[in-house]
Amino acid sequence: MPVDSASFSSRLATAIRTKGNAVCVGLDPRKNMLPKGLLPDTWFDETDVVAQAYRTFCCSIIDVVAPLVPVVKPQLAFFEQLGPGGMRALKKVVAYARSANLLVILDGKRADIGSTAEAYADAYLGADSAWGGDALTISPYLGMDSIAPFVTTAVERQAGLFALVKTSNPGSGMFQDLKVDGVPLYHTVADRVEALAVETADDTGYGVVGAVVGATFPEQLAELRERMRHAWLLVPGFGSQGGTANDVMAAFDDQGLGAIINSSRSIIFAHERPGFDARFGHAKWEEAVEAATREMIDQLDAR
Amino acid sequence: MPVDSASFSSRLATAIRTKGNAVCVGLDPRKNMLPKGLLPDTWFDETDVVAQAYRTFCCSIIDVVAPLVPVVKPQLAFFEQLGPGGMRALKKVVAYARSANLLVILDGKRADIGSTAEAYADAYLGADSAWGGDALTISPYLGMDSIAPFVTTAVERQAGLFALVKTSNPGSGMFQDLKVDGVPLYHTVADRVEALAVETADDTGYGVVGAVVGATFPEQLAELRERMRHAWLLVPGFGSQGGTANDVMAAFDDQGLGAIINSSRSIIFAHERPGFDARFGHAKWEEAVEAATREMIDQLDAR
Repeated sequence: MPVDSASFSSRLATAIRTKGNAVCVGLDPRKNMLPKGLLPDTWFDETDVVAQAYRTFCCSIIDVVAPLVPVVKPQLAFFEQLGPGGMRALKKVVAYARSANLLVILDGKRADIGSTAEAYADAYLGADSAWGGDALTISPYLGMDSIAPFVTTAVERQAGLFALVKTSNPGSGMFQDLKVDGVPLYHTVADRVEALAVETADDTGYGVVGAVVGATFPEQLAELRERMRHAWLLVPGFGSQGGTANDVMAAFDDQGLGAIINSSRSIIFAHERPGFDARFGHAKWEEAVEAATREMIDQLDAR
Repeated sequence: MPVDSASFSSRLATAIRTKGNAVCVGLDPRKNMLPKGLLPDTWFDETDVVAQAYRTFCCSIIDVVAPLVPVVKPQLAFFEQLGPGGMRALKKVVAYARSANLLVILDGKRADIGSTAEAYADAYLGADSAWGGDALTISPYLGMDSIAPFVTTAVERQAGLFALVKTSNPGSGMFQDLKVDGVPLYHTVADRVEALAVETADDTGYGVVGAVVGATFPEQLAELRERMRHAWLLVPGFGSQGGTANDVMAAFDDQGLGAIINSSRSIIFAHERPGFDARFGHAKWEEAVEAATREMIDQLDAR
């Protein structure tokens, strides 16, 4: 299988430098929040009609954000929700994003054991995989032998991984913060991620395995940046979940690399945000996406 | 949305009583292990051709096992591996299994936060969902607020859930066995699962939320049966992973309910097993599936 031309890490670093920011736009389409006009007026909940609308919506967002940001992150759940038609739309959206020179992180939080993990890795990682992702989010609860097949495939295909370490939801502490020998569980997971990142680091200083760390826990984010010096951090929770530019600054290294900050709803459904709704509304929803993207870039820049 | 006619728990109990066993056949198609004849002789790795073969393979297995066992468990990874065509095949396989009066557990180990978890639940749970599962496997690392949306939907749609508690892989202890206040993490997860099972229990005595506990750790299986008296246990690891009938007996309650025992490769690729290969081979692979299924039923019966 052909591979991408350079490691995910170096492609990501180049893209961040080229675009001048580390914003990731989350593609989380939801049928009840789509701008008017994307679904036909008479619409009988046929999932293929919705899937086509998701494709149009996401590709239009890609048109707007491709000149501005380095990365997009389709959330697989919303495509899976529509059945096979949704999955066809997902594949088209990923291909379209790649053709627009965006890196694509597939947010699936996949996990399984042994040869089943190999199947997930084969499915999602690399330009010529079934879904064509540059990177995939994965869940660590099954242990490192469940992560190893993902790492092997990611190395072979110049792809990337982001393992859940400290997630952005209010209840993430229930298991992740439990104290094991006096330290929280997420430290133990972080140390394993860092070990894999060190093993696979290239001349960017970062490895194949990164970590998901929520913007909603800024202290832990700072602590985890120090603890995983070779791991890219994918930081969700910015914007509608409450994370601010101040909160995420500690995720970056002193070259401004090492992290990408995701925002989904605040950007893709910007036409519904207070202030934005009056300025843009449904008719100019793409302009709202652009304004929201530029606003986020400026907020991160100002820090 | 219409719902199934009774709770997952009561449908499962009825199916186990009707079939007289608690065997779950795992549908894990792999293209390099398919019986000869299912793929055309000249075959250029076109994923839709493979997807059609997976559909034929799984539906033939369903024809064989539907009179014998109560449950099948398609492993989503292998269908996702083929891209959109694989997902179309998955949907057809689930519908075919349902039409043969089998219960269908979708093994996706899904997890996400808030409204994204809602989307996964909506996608997979219930007869009229996009994929039509009777139940779904889920991963708990994100915390109970990430599980709650799955529970809400499962209750509404008379569907079931199986949360990963103690998985069957050799490295499952890396995080799951870590001691928190002197007890392993999987106890803490189990206690949360049991609480949700108690809350949602019906007259079977079992709730909407069950647990995945590997056959490869028989002591922990016995301990977890006691610890989660209201949770169905989905027990993988029987057969090719090394679990025996002896190992899984402790998973059952004294009525012979409370657990389903999964076997995948030992049944669906039985034509390749030593002994079976000479008796059946590729030409009689369906007879090999039947013999392997009956063998497993007998092994569990003999205990």
